[in-house]
Amino acid sequence: MTFYQAIRSIQREHKSLLCVGLDTDVRKIPKFLLSHRDPVQEFNSRIIEATRDIVCAYKINLAFYEAMGEHGWRTVQQTLACIPEEVVTIGDAKRGDIGNSAELYARSIMDDYNFASCTVNPYMGEDAVRPFAENRAKGAFVLAVTSNPGAKDFQYLSVNGKPLYERVIATVKKWNTKRNLGLVVGATRPSEMARVRKLVPEMPLLIPGIGAQGGDVKSTVRYGCDVRGEMAIINASRSIIYASNGEDFAEASRMAAMKLRDEINAYRAQFF
Amino acid sequence: MTFYQAIRSIQREHKSLLCVGLDTDVRKIPKFLLSHRDPVQEFNSRIIEATRDIVCAYKINLAFYEAMGEHGWRTVQQTLACIPEEVVTIGDAKRGDIGNSAELYARSIMDDYNFASCTVNPYMGEDAVRPFAENRAKGAFVLAVTSNPGAKDFQYLSVNGKPLYERVIATVKKWNTKRNLGLVVGATRPSEMARVRKLVPEMPLLIPGIGAQGGDVKSTVRYGCDVRGEMAIINASRSIIYASNGEDFAEASRMAAMKLRDEINAYRAQFF
Repeated sequence: MTFYQAIRSIQREHKSLLCVGLDTDVRKIPKFLLSHRDPVQEFNSRIIEATRDIVCAYKINLAFYEAMGEHGWRTVQQTLACIPEEVVTIGDAKRGDIGNSAELYARSIMDDYNFASCTVNPYMGEDAVRPFAENRAKGAFVLAVTSNPGAKDFQYLSVNGKPLYERVIATVKKWNTKRNLGLVVGATRPSEMARVRKLVPEMPLLIPGIGAQGGDVKSTVRYGCDVRGEMAIINASRSIIYASNGEDFAEASRMAAMKLRDEINAYRAQFF
Repeated sequence: MTFYQAIRSIQREHKSLLCVGLDTDVRKIPKFLLSHRDPVQEFNSRIIEATRDIVCAYKINLAFYEAMGEHGWRTVQQTLACIPEEVVTIGDAKRGDIGNSAELYARSIMDDYNFASCTVNPYMGEDAVRPFAENRAKGAFVLAVTSNPGAKDFQYLSVNGKPLYERVIATVKKWNTKRNLGLVVGATRPSEMARVRKLVPEMPLLIPGIGAQGGDVKSTVRYGCDVRGEMAIINASRSIIYASNGEDFAEASRMAAMKLRDEINAYRAQFF
C-alpha cells in the first residue's frame, strides 16, 4: 500500500479526518499520573486507547520528547507501539539539514522510530527533503504555510508576483516523483488553504491550528479536502488531550475527539 | 560576558577562528575504539583533548547523536563536559517550530544540554527563532545561505530584486535586539559571503563547508571576517576528525586542525 492509499484507507475505515497531536507535557497531565514510572507514556497510552478507532492519524511533536532528555526516546518508541498499524503516524520534527545529516535524521525518524511520515522544512532545498521520501510506503509533509504568527515573516514574500509558499508548493510538486509528499498548511490560513488545494488537488495536507490556535473547522474542511472530501489530516492537540485534568481525562479526550470528528464530518456531508 | 564578547575573547586567546565539527559516526571511527563502552564519546573526548587549545568552537551536529537512539543524549552531555568553558559550543540542530514547541527545543538545547549557541531555521519566522535568543550570554545562528546544493532551490529566489537570503538577513538584523544572533553562511558561497559581511559588519558568521564540502579557505577568511579579521567561525568536520583511522587519530586530528588554523591565520595576516 502506498502512503497516499494508507491515508485514504484509514480515513474511510474510521470515517475520520481527525489527527490527535500527542504534544504531551508532563507539567500539564493529570497529577495522579505522576506516580507512574513514565507518566507521559501512561498518559499517551490511555489517550490512544480512548481514541484509536476515531482518528486517522497521531502526530507526535518531537520537541516535547527531546525536552524529556534521554528517556524521551524510549517514551516515543513505547507510544508508537500503542498505535494500531493502520493508523498513520506523523513524526512532527520539522527537520532540514544537508544531505548526509538529513539521511541520519531520516534514519532515526523513519527507520529506528518507524514513523509512517514526518514533517520537514524546505529552506535548505531538495537534498534536505529527499532522504525522508525514499520509501513509497511512507511520506513527508513539507512546511508550506504554517499556523504561527511568524509565518508572515518569509512565507508570504512575493516571488515573481506570488507568495514564497506557492513557489515551495510548485517545487515540492516537482520533487513528488514517488507520490509520497504532502504539505503542512495551517488551519489559521483559510484563504491560502483554498489556493493550496487548487495547486495540489491530490496531495495530502497536514493541517494544524484547530483548537488552541483558533483555526476554523468549517473552512478547513471546505478548502482543505480533496474533491472526495478526503486527504486533509486535521490536527488538534491541546484541545483534545487536555480536555479534562481529572481521572476521566481519557474519556474526556474521546468525547472531545468524537465531537470534533463529527463536526468535521457534518461539514464534509455539506460540501462533498 | 555577552555572546559576541565570548567569541572574540576565545578567538584572540587561542589565535584561532577554527571550529571543529564533531559529526561523529560510529561507522567511521577507528575500529580499535569499538571495544569501549561508548566508542563515540571516547572518540570525541580524545579529539577534544587533542584540539582544545587551538579552536575557538566545537560544533555538535545533533543528527549524528539522534541516530544513536537513547544513548545519544548522554553522549552529547558527556562530550560537552569535556569542552573547556571558554570554548564556544554550537548545537547544530537547525530547529524551527511554532512558539511553544520552539521553547521546548530551546530549553533542551540551551538549558538542559547547556550549549552556548545553536543553529535555527528561519522559514517559520520570529516566534520560531526568539526562544533560542533569550539569554544575552548565549546565541543563535540563523540559516542564511547554506553550503549544500539545495541552497539554490529557495534561498536565491528574487524578492524585490534581491535574493531571499538577503531578506532573511535584513530581518534577523531587526530581531537582533539583544545582540546575540549570528548567521550561517556556507564556505561554498564566496561571492555571497562578501555581500553578507557588508550587510552585517558585526555579526558572527558560522561558516561550514570547508574541507569535505570543498569550500575555499582564502575567500572564506577574506570575506567572512569582520574588519578586525575576527567573528568568522570556520567549521571543518570530516577533514579534521577523520584525519587518520589508526591509533594516531587524535594526534592526526591535531595536525590537521593546526594546519587549517595556521592557513586561516596566514590569510588573516594578509588581509587584515
